[in-house]
Amino acid sequence: MDSLVFVTGNEEKLAEAKSILTDFRIDSVVLDLPELQGDRELVVKEKARLAAKKLGMPCFVDDTSLCFSALKGLPGIYIREFLEKIGRDGLVKLLTGFDDKSAEAVCMIGFCYPNKEPICFEGITEGTIVNPRGDRFGWDPIFQPFGYKKTYAEMTIIEKNKISHRKKALIKFKKFLEKK
Amino acid sequence: MDSLVFVTGNEEKLAEAKSILTDFRIDSVVLDLPELQGDRELVVKEKARLAAKKLGMPCFVDDTSLCFSALKGLPGIYIREFLEKIGRDGLVKLLTGFDDKSAEAVCMIGFCYPNKEPICFEGITEGTIVNPRGDRFGWDPIFQPFGYKKTYAEMTIIEKNKISHRKKALIKFKKFLEKK
Repeated sequence: MDSLVFVTGNEEKLAEAKSILTDFRIDSVVLDLPELQGDRELVVKEKARLAAKKLGMPCFVDDTSLCFSALKGLPGIYIREFLEKIGRDGLVKLLTGFDDKSAEAVCMIGFCYPNKEPICFEGITEGTIVNPRGDRFGWDPIFQPFGYKKTYAEMTIIEKNKISHRKKALIKFKKFLEKK
Repeated sequence: MDSLVFVTGNEEKLAEAKSILTDFRIDSVVLDLPELQGDRELVVKEKARLAAKKLGMPCFVDDTSLCFSALKGLPGIYIREFLEKIGRDGLVKLLTGFDDKSAEAVCMIGFCYPNKEPICFEGITEGTIVNPRGDRFGWDPIFQPFGYKKTYAEMTIIEKNKISHRKKALIKFKKFLEKK
């Protein structure tokens, strides 16, 4: 059974990856990797490249963006910093002056073999930014996927994982690995 | 006369630096340096470190932040990307839901000798985010310094440079160099 390293300290993400990439042994490692500014594809690829170089093993990393349509995709990859600084209520307030409340939740998985070129897999779930409802970490309470009456935070983990941006990226990654 | 390299492609910035750091020969070089996410001090120090390593000469770089108080300092170092994507009007609209329209314009200069630890110098000008007035590049038309009735863009370059965030950082840098 081939081995992959998932660079994450998040147990829930690790469990989700294991449940999808069933043909692989997935180990997790916590690495403090520098994160660049810029295009989300380049950012995640560079993280994967650094991780594979550092560990000498095939590595994958993930990066989440929350992209407000009215803000042309911002805060995007900077969502974690925005969330830390202005919170969910602040994020909702950013859109007060804009009519368009739609957003994309994006998971970008970067994957790299040591000394090879990194590649990436993108999963997108579209939705609307709403006032916080539900009780889960992060921005889950303010993101309501299109076609659903619940926010991510009001769904069970199982419901959410069925339609989540991360799930979609993991499925693409799985298909890639199966073709190898 | 000692030599310093200013990593910039901006002629106006170069002229301003030369006008203040008169005891040095200042050359400019355009380098495409990766920019990290995170704390503005660390970001500019890393850029200076990379530049000095690459060129093998004492180098300085500058980085500008526009920090909205209501957004706990954001967009901060990401201001260029915000400006490119949502423009001046979009930046003003970000604050529609917030009463506090105050902001800090920050210039951070990073300086590094090859293979030494980088240091930095910060200049801050406080002001208010207003509807665009005046006709100059960037976010100058939406930033009105405290105590003035003009935006940066309505001032002449000479007026602006007297009170600008970059000027303040350059003066600190000059004082440091004089002590060496």
